[in-house]
Amino acid sequence: MKSSLARRVTAEFIGTAFLVAAVVGSGIMGERLANGNVVLALLANTLATGAALLALIFTFGQVSGAHLNPVVTLMDAFEHGLPWRETPHYAVGQILGGICGAVVAHLMFALPVISLSHHIRSGPAQIFSEFVATFGLVSVIWGCSRVRPSSIPFAVAAYITSAYWFTASTSFANPAVTIARCLSDTFAGIRSKDVPWFLIAQLFGGIAATMLFRWLVPNLQAAAKQVPVAHESEQNR
Amino acid sequence: MKSSLARRVTAEFIGTAFLVAAVVGSGIMGERLANGNVVLALLANTLATGAALLALIFTFGQVSGAHLNPVVTLMDAFEHGLPWRETPHYAVGQILGGICGAVVAHLMFALPVISLSHHIRSGPAQIFSEFVATFGLVSVIWGCSRVRPSSIPFAVAAYITSAYWFTASTSFANPAVTIARCLSDTFAGIRSKDVPWFLIAQLFGGIAATMLFRWLVPNLQAAAKQVPVAHESEQNR
Amino acid sequence: MKSSLARRVTAEFIGTAFLVAAVVGSGIMGERLANGNVVLALLANTLATGAALLALIFTFGQVSGAHLNPVVTLMDAFEHGLPWRETPHYAVGQILGGICGAVVAHLMFALPVISLSHHIRSGPAQIFSEFVATFGLVSVIWGCSRVRPSSIPFAVAAYITSAYWFTASTSFANPAVTIARCLSDTFAGIRSKDVPWFLIAQLFGGIAATMLFRWLVPNLQAAAKQVPVAHESEQNR
Amino acid sequence: MKSSLARRVTAEFIGTAFLVAAVVGSGIMGERLANGNVVLALLANTLATGAALLALIFTFGQVSGAHLNPVVTLMDAFEHGLPWRETPHYAVGQILGGICGAVVAHLMFALPVISLSHHIRSGPAQIFSEFVATFGLVSVIWGCSRVRPSSIPFAVAAYITSAYWFTASTSFANPAVTIARCLSDTFAGIRSKDVPWFLIAQLFGGIAATMLFRWLVPNLQAAAKQVPVAHESEQNR
Repeated sequence: MKSSLARRVTAEFIGTAFLVAAVVGSGIMGERLANGNVVLALLANTLATGAALLALIFTFGQVSGAHLNPVVTLMDAFEHGLPWRETPHYAVGQILGGICGAVVAHLMFALPVISLSHHIRSGPAQIFSEFVATFGLVSVIWGCSRVRPSSIPFAVAAYITSAYWFTASTSFANPAVTIARCLSDTFAGIRSKDVPWFLIAQLFGGIAATMLFRWLVPNLQAAAKQVPVAHESEQNR
Repeated sequence: MKSSLARRVTAEFIGTAFLVAAVVGSGIMGERLANGNVVLALLANTLATGAALLALIFTFGQVSGAHLNPVVTLMDAFEHGLPWRETPHYAVGQILGGICGAVVAHLMFALPVISLSHHIRSGPAQIFSEFVATFGLVSVIWGCSRVRPSSIPFAVAAYITSAYWFTASTSFANPAVTIARCLSDTFAGIRSKDVPWFLIAQLFGGIAATMLFRWLVPNLQAAAKQVPVAHESEQNR
Repeated sequence: MKSSLARRVTAEFIGTAFLVAAVVGSGIMGERLANGNVVLALLANTLATGAALLALIFTFGQVSGAHLNPVVTLMDAFEHGLPWRETPHYAVGQILGGICGAVVAHLMFALPVISLSHHIRSGPAQIFSEFVATFGLVSVIWGCSRVRPSSIPFAVAAYITSAYWFTASTSFANPAVTIARCLSDTFAGIRSKDVPWFLIAQLFGGIAATMLFRWLVPNLQAAAKQVPVAHESEQNR
Repeated sequence: MKSSLARRVTAEFIGTAFLVAAVVGSGIMGERLANGNVVLALLANTLATGAALLALIFTFGQVSGAHLNPVVTLMDAFEHGLPWRETPHYAVGQILGGICGAVVAHLMFALPVISLSHHIRSGPAQIFSEFVATFGLVSVIWGCSRVRPSSIPFAVAAYITSAYWFTASTSFANPAVTIARCLSDTFAGIRSKDVPWFLIAQLFGGIAATMLFRWLVPNLQAAAKQVPVAHESEQNR
C-alpha cells in the first residue's frame, strides 16, 4: 500500500535532512580530529556518508522510495514512476530537508546556524566529475531497480562510498545536498557561485544514464515504479 | 516460537555486555596504538562498534529481539510490542550486561576492574547531539521493522557507524551503554555528572521518533512485535 | 530473459570503465591527499575499489553477468557458460571499457588523457601474487555461483578488498584492468613491460581455480550459466 | 546433497590457507607501508581479515560448511553436527591449510618460506582475551546457525573485524590460524611458547559458548547440521 503524499514528502524531508547532517557533521568532526590531515578527514566523511545512505534507504525506502535526491525524483518521473504532479513536492521536501540537515549539523557542533561556504570547487574537471558521478549514481539505481530492488541500499551506499574517492569533486551528485552544502562554511561546503554548474552537470549526468538504461534494459519504465526501493514487490516475497 | 523470559533477558545481558566490551575495548586499543592521533582512534572505535552491532543483532535477534538498549525496549513496549511487565527485566539485564562488558574489557587490557571516567561531555551541543542520535536510531528501527526486519542488523550497524562521526557526542544513544561507559576512565568514558543529561536526551529522542513514525507508518504497532528482528516472520520465509 | 549481445557488451564496456575509473581515480585522489603516506593512499584505493565492485556487479549483473574481466569470461566459456563465439565481444568490450575508464579518471583529475606508467611491478613474487590473486578470485566466483549467486557481489567485492592487502601486487587479477592501468602514470599504474607476466599469471590462476572447482563442485558446468549473477534463478525467487 | 569427505577436507584446507594468507600477508603489507604506525597496520590487517572471511565463508560454506577452525569443528561434532569420525580429517586439513597459507604469504612477499615468530603474546590478559574472543565467535555461530544461516558470513566477518580491536590479543580465536602464525616472524606472528595457552583458552571459550547456547537455544542440536552455512536449507529457499 502506497503512503499518502504528505507522509512520503515528510519521509523525503527527514531522510535528506539526516543525509546532509551526516555529510556536513562528519566533515566537521573529521576535520577537527584530523588536524589538517585531509586524507583522514575524507576517510571519516566517506565512511559516515556511505553508512548513512545504507541506513536511510532501508529506513525510508518503504515509505517514499527514499530518493533523497531531486535528480533521482526527476528521472523517476521521466520514466513514468512518480507522477509528475508529485515531483515538485518531493523536490521541495528534499531541498528544505537538506537545509534543515545542515542547520542541525551546525547546532550539534556549536557552530553558527548558517554560514556561506568559501570552499572553491570550480573548473571543467570538477564539473565533468559531477557529470560522471551522477551518471554512475543513476545507472546504479536503474540497473538495480529492475530486478533486485532489495540490493539498492547496498549498491547506492557502496557507489557513493567509492565515488567520494574516484571523482575530483568527491561526488555531490545530488542537487538538494549541493544546495545545503553551500550553506555550510565547513569541510563539506561549496562556494555558492559554483553551485549552478554542479546542478547542471548533475542533471545532464542523470539524463544520460536514463537514456542509456532505456536502451540497455527494455522494461525500464515498468521498473520505475519501484525506485529506489520497491513498495509492493518486497512485500510479496 | 518465543523464548522464555529468562533466556531472553540472558540474551540481552550477554549481547549488551559484548556491545560495551567492543566499545570500551576498541577505544582502549585504538588510543594505545594511535599514540594520541584521535582521528585514528575514533576510526578504530567506529569500525569495532559498527561491526559488533551487526554480529550481535544477527546473533541475539532471534532470541530476545536484540534490543541491547533500554530506550528501544521502552519504545517497543510503548507500541505494544514487548509486554510492559517484561520491560524492567530487559532494562536491568541490559544495564547489568553493560557494566559487565566494561569490566571484561578492562580485564582484557589489564586495567583496574572499574574506574570512574573523567571524560567531560557536557554542554547543549552534546545533549542536542544525543537527542538527534537517538531520534535517528529509533527512526531506523521503526522504519525497517515494519517491512524488512531482516535489514535491521545492517541498518542499525550502519546508522551507528555514521552517527559516531556526524554527532558531536559520538552518538551514545543508549542508556545502558552510557551508564557502563561512565565506569571506564578510558577513551570511550563519560564523566558520571554528564550521564543524566545524556539519558534524558536519549529518552526524548526515542519518544520523538516514535511519535513521528506512528503517523508516518500507520501500522507501526503491529510491526512492534518484530522489533528489532522478527521472530516469526523470518521463519516463514 | 537474456539481453541481446549488443546490450551485454555495452554493459561490460561501461561496467569495466567504471571499475577502472574507480581504481585509477581513487589512486590519484588518495595519493594527492595522503602526501606520500602510502598506507593511507592504498586504504582509500581499496575502499573505493571494493565498494565500486559491489555497486557495479549489482548494477550490471542482470544485464551481462558483470564479468568485467576477460579471465572470468574465458573461464565461463570454458565451463560452457557463455558461448565461445561471444567471448571475443566480451573481452574487447572489457578492454576498451577499461581504457575508457582510465581516460575518464584522468580527465576528472585534469591530467593528460593517457600517460604510460613507470610503476615497476616485476619479479617472481609479484607474478606469483597475481597467480594467487586470480586463483582466489575465480575460486570465489565458482564457489558462490553454484548455490547462492546473490552472494557474488558481496563475495567478490570483499575478496578484492582483502587481496589488495594480502598479495604483494595489490591484486590486479584482471587483464582488462591491467592493460588500462599501464596507460596511467599514477598511483595505480603498471609499467607496460611488466604487463605480459601479469596477464600470464592471471590466466594460469584462473585455469587452476577452474580445474579445482570442477572436481570440488561436480555440477559446476550447470552453474556456469549463472556467472557471476544469475539471470533466471534470481527472478524465480 | 552433501559433498564427499575428500572434497570437504580439501575445501577446509584451501579455505584456511586463504584465511591465513590474508592474515599474514596483509600484516606484512600493512607493516611495510605503515612505517611503524601500528594503528594503520592493524587497520589494514583487520580490513583484509574481515573481508577474506566474508568471501571465504560464502565460497566454501556450501561445500564443507566453511568451519576453517578446529574449535568450530569440535563444537559442531559436540552438538551432533559433523560426525565425530570426520573431525580429525577436518582439523588436519585446517592445520595443514593454515601452514600452507603462511608459506604462500611469505612467498608472495619474497620472505623465507618459514620463520619462527618472536612476537611475545603472553600473560593472563592475553589468555583471557582469547577466551572471550572464542566465546564470542562460537556464540555468533550458534546464534545465527539456528534461524538464518545465510547471515553467518556477514556475522562472523563482522565479529572478527570487531574483535581484532576489542580484545588485547587481536582475537586469534582459531587453533589452526594460531599454529600457522607461530611460523611467521612478521606482524601477525606469535611466539611458539605462547601458543599452547592460546589453544587452551580458545577451547574453553568454545565450550563455554556451546554450553550457554545449549540452554539459550533449545533446538541447537538440530541446527548443528547447518554450521556454519546450511547445505540443504539454503537450496530449498
